[in-house]
Amino acid sequence: MQFIFGCRLAYRTPSAIPFVFNIEAQQFDGQTLFDEQLTTTPGVDIERWTMPESGNRYVRVIAPPGSFSVEYRGRVELSPSLQEPASVVEVPVAQLPLAVFTHLYPSRYCQSDKLERFARSTFGDLAAGYMRVNGICNWIHDYVSYEGGVSDALTSAFDTVTQRAGVCRDFAHLAIAICRSLGVPARYVSAYAFRLEPPDFHAVFEAYLQGPDGPGWYLFDPTRLADPAGLVRIGIGRDAAEVAFCSPYGSVEYDKPEVWIDAVGEAPPATTQAVRPMTGS
Amino acid sequence: MQFIFGCRLAYRTPSAIPFVFNIEAQQFDGQTLFDEQLTTTPGVDIERWTMPESGNRYVRVIAPPGSFSVEYRGRVELSPSLQEPASVVEVPVAQLPLAVFTHLYPSRYCQSDKLERFARSTFGDLAAGYMRVNGICNWIHDYVSYEGGVSDALTSAFDTVTQRAGVCRDFAHLAIAICRSLGVPARYVSAYAFRLEPPDFHAVFEAYLQGPDGPGWYLFDPTRLADPAGLVRIGIGRDAAEVAFCSPYGSVEYDKPEVWIDAVGEAPPATTQAVRPMTGS
Amino acid sequence: MQFIFGCRLAYRTPSAIPFVFNIEAQQFDGQTLFDEQLTTTPGVDIERWTMPESGNRYVRVIAPPGSFSVEYRGRVELSPSLQEPASVVEVPVAQLPLAVFTHLYPSRYCQSDKLERFARSTFGDLAAGYMRVNGICNWIHDYVSYEGGVSDALTSAFDTVTQRAGVCRDFAHLAIAICRSLGVPARYVSAYAFRLEPPDFHAVFEAYLQGPDGPGWYLFDPTRLADPAGLVRIGIGRDAAEVAFCSPYGSVEYDKPEVWIDAVGEAPPATTQAVRPMTGS
Amino acid sequence: MQFIFGCRLAYRTPSAIPFVFNIEAQQFDGQTLFDEQLTTTPGVDIERWTMPESGNRYVRVIAPPGSFSVEYRGRVELSPSLQEPASVVEVPVAQLPLAVFTHLYPSRYCQSDKLERFARSTFGDLAAGYMRVNGICNWIHDYVSYEGGVSDALTSAFDTVTQRAGVCRDFAHLAIAICRSLGVPARYVSAYAFRLEPPDFHAVFEAYLQGPDGPGWYLFDPTRLADPAGLVRIGIGRDAAEVAFCSPYGSVEYDKPEVWIDAVGEAPPATTQAVRPMTGS
Repeated sequence: MQFIFGCRLAYRTPSAIPFVFNIEAQQFDGQTLFDEQLTTTPGVDIERWTMPESGNRYVRVIAPPGSFSVEYRGRVELSPSLQEPASVVEVPVAQLPLAVFTHLYPSRYCQSDKLERFARSTFGDLAAGYMRVNGICNWIHDYVSYEGGVSDALTSAFDTVTQRAGVCRDFAHLAIAICRSLGVPARYVSAYAFRLEPPDFHAVFEAYLQGPDGPGWYLFDPTRLADPAGLVRIGIGRDAAEVAFCSPYGSVEYDKPEVWIDAVGEAPPATTQAVRPMTGS
Repeated sequence: MQFIFGCRLAYRTPSAIPFVFNIEAQQFDGQTLFDEQLTTTPGVDIERWTMPESGNRYVRVIAPPGSFSVEYRGRVELSPSLQEPASVVEVPVAQLPLAVFTHLYPSRYCQSDKLERFARSTFGDLAAGYMRVNGICNWIHDYVSYEGGVSDALTSAFDTVTQRAGVCRDFAHLAIAICRSLGVPARYVSAYAFRLEPPDFHAVFEAYLQGPDGPGWYLFDPTRLADPAGLVRIGIGRDAAEVAFCSPYGSVEYDKPEVWIDAVGEAPPATTQAVRPMTGS
Repeated sequence: MQFIFGCRLAYRTPSAIPFVFNIEAQQFDGQTLFDEQLTTTPGVDIERWTMPESGNRYVRVIAPPGSFSVEYRGRVELSPSLQEPASVVEVPVAQLPLAVFTHLYPSRYCQSDKLERFARSTFGDLAAGYMRVNGICNWIHDYVSYEGGVSDALTSAFDTVTQRAGVCRDFAHLAIAICRSLGVPARYVSAYAFRLEPPDFHAVFEAYLQGPDGPGWYLFDPTRLADPAGLVRIGIGRDAAEVAFCSPYGSVEYDKPEVWIDAVGEAPPATTQAVRPMTGS
Repeated sequence: MQFIFGCRLAYRTPSAIPFVFNIEAQQFDGQTLFDEQLTTTPGVDIERWTMPESGNRYVRVIAPPGSFSVEYRGRVELSPSLQEPASVVEVPVAQLPLAVFTHLYPSRYCQSDKLERFARSTFGDLAAGYMRVNGICNWIHDYVSYEGGVSDALTSAFDTVTQRAGVCRDFAHLAIAICRSLGVPARYVSAYAFRLEPPDFHAVFEAYLQGPDGPGWYLFDPTRLADPAGLVRIGIGRDAAEVAFCSPYGSVEYDKPEVWIDAVGEAPPATTQAVRPMTGS
């Protein structure tokens, strides 16, 4: 399935300041990019770096004083593996690759070390594997209110599990924290999200599970607002701290970001299969 | 029903320091005291004060350097009103006496302002009144592990609702916070507790509800460890901060308190009725 | 010194709901009220209760559906005792009246139990008494930024001591928590505040100290925004939880409150003396 | 300078469980290992993995039921670069390698996002560079009490900055959080620590600064308990979550670890120079 997508971000700064952006989509087997273009107005030098362990593509620019904008656009072919949910099981900790333990550790917004008893008593009886992670998403969808203005940039899973309101970022943080508490590696994913209304940057998560073709990362969206087969992955990280789409290092004013994603041709209905993006890492 | 009860507290201090104790039982219609005696070793002057709005009896002494102990003993007749749980209902906020609003406010260890959505989504569907408060106790009993060494003096309901482990104090704090979140006034009660094993100071709580004979305070023990009809009330407060059995103002070493309570004559089995202590305030 | 003061609060509710207001000024030796008037539009029954231990005057009304407003106005003579700061000392805990221990306990927004080491290491070397409490106010004024939109109704002293930004409520909470950590009873005061710009309900605090004429409560304003001799006391409490000017129990929209206070005749410059409101409790 | 070092860890488990250890020292230019040996009793298969981005060496074993122990020993040549503190300056964010931004993000125990105003108001006036990071260490050493039993595995920098007590882990977390708040990348380091009494695993941190020979990581020990030139680095991470020396995945009892490190030959006095371990990453 192909998508046209992109974003336009506009800022005003009183003086020259550095910005780090993480808005370019990742490249991997299941996500092939075409016709990518990143432009700045006014034009400035662009410094790029791709993080080896995540594939995240970071861009740094020094924005001049005054108005500054970044536009990114591209076309992408997504070819995730769609699998039968019941066929996707948990990987015992004795068999987890040591490289994924990173995503078992508690992180700033996902304090899995404080949620263990809660997670075991609430989800301990669900059958391990995809169905349990999906059960966690259902619980969050049912018990946490999707609502702007309640949470903020400091809100963490430990707050949300009790305060029960937040946005996509908070939903993902809570799901990740619960998964890690139960011994399931989980990581934060920022994405362009097909069928998300209104269009915006979206936050979802991946859990490390074992499918019919071996272990790997599976996508989940506890907000149920986007099509899991239409998520164009930007960045992955322990939590939102690592994949901010824009980090200005100085004083700045900004407009609301414009974000878009459209299917090329007719899109099938949103999938109910397990979605495995087929990434190497 | 009559009980013999008391405690013995022993300390060692390098220098003379003030202590405030709250170990003497309250006196009210449903709790009549006989043969009370408070002695200190060595003997020192005792200053007393009874808080008008709570009936809590505070005692201050200046303990001399060295060993110091306090022994309190008494006999008590408890005559609570035992009522049919289904007959006890909620008081609408429009009819609550303004004097009990104090026990609707969040307090140090009972942050009801942070538990509203959780409380409504977990307990909102239970029938209001005694049965709902009892349902809160059942939930705490089922989902929070009674366990020493997990919580400490800084632990609050906001921690316990997620960390899911604690002792009687934590159970009471969580229940109080949930009640207040739902608009039910609730207050902390420290007590000598019949049938509590091993004997110790106990923490339970009271909720303000409406019984067949009008509105008043009803006792609940979410630990299910004591007999609600055998609780000799020491102090009430917004939470544990107000009814510490001993507050030393200086450096001190202490022994584990000895606490006892025994029935005079044969005690009936623990009650399953709603227990209303028949206090004026 | 006399002042004319008052407020006007306007609401819209879809259905009839109870409101509790705490906007009427207290009455005590140092604060004499004249020509008080509380009116509602439309007119409704007013239920009143004065809390014995605080003197707070609470008002309950059932507001009808639609627009509802409350207007309160009065004239007041303030005759606080103004004393030389250096003459006001600390009361040792062995001599504090047992009735003020309540204001040594940690409360919802003033977690003095978590600030002890911080308070001792930062303020332990200041000379005890008025000068130390004033030093705490100076520290808060210097190190906490007075800024709207950073804190919210859930923010507590434990947050503010590190996050270093807030409004009058947060300044008072932090000062109270520090005082209690050091063994100085402190309580929250809501007030009409002369010279506060723009006019609004204000939050300050009182500390229990010993002046030339005996022990009592002294006023402090760590925001330095109002004249301590021009504070018309509305309510006192452990913290903001107890003295909300308006508590609606149901869904409501509201306008920004109008609040005013003006001197009758010419006012002297803001005092630099220690201000003791001369209240009985 | 050469050192002989190692540790012995003993466990008892009721059933076979996986363990992940991070006790082997890293290998890099400034830290050369000889005669390393890792043995288990009873002998079991050992699975190893070195994390590319950190150089951390993780070991996984499946321990059989009953007693199980691990012993690790080695010899190491440390050849850090010792530099004049005043010659080590800050790297502006516009010039920081994008690969080190990871260590600017807030993490589980180092919530730099909540400490910004505190950090700026307390340390903003110090001269940027090594001297400022050293000033942060001095402040922590002076204002935080080194004390066991106050903090626990859930304690974070946001707690410690106010509660002012903890152990080496807490000291490092607080220092890291402050550095990140000020725009200085900082990371957690676990180590064998020469001159630490009693011997134990130690926690220190590194800050990314610019020395006379270019930018790189510099070691700091805010506890002042070890010799910075005698730290044998085991693991680095965002915080303690990533470099636990032992992670058992199941029920376990354990003895206190034995840890040792001794100089080969006579050691010079502890250095007061800036210590740069000369690691590639």
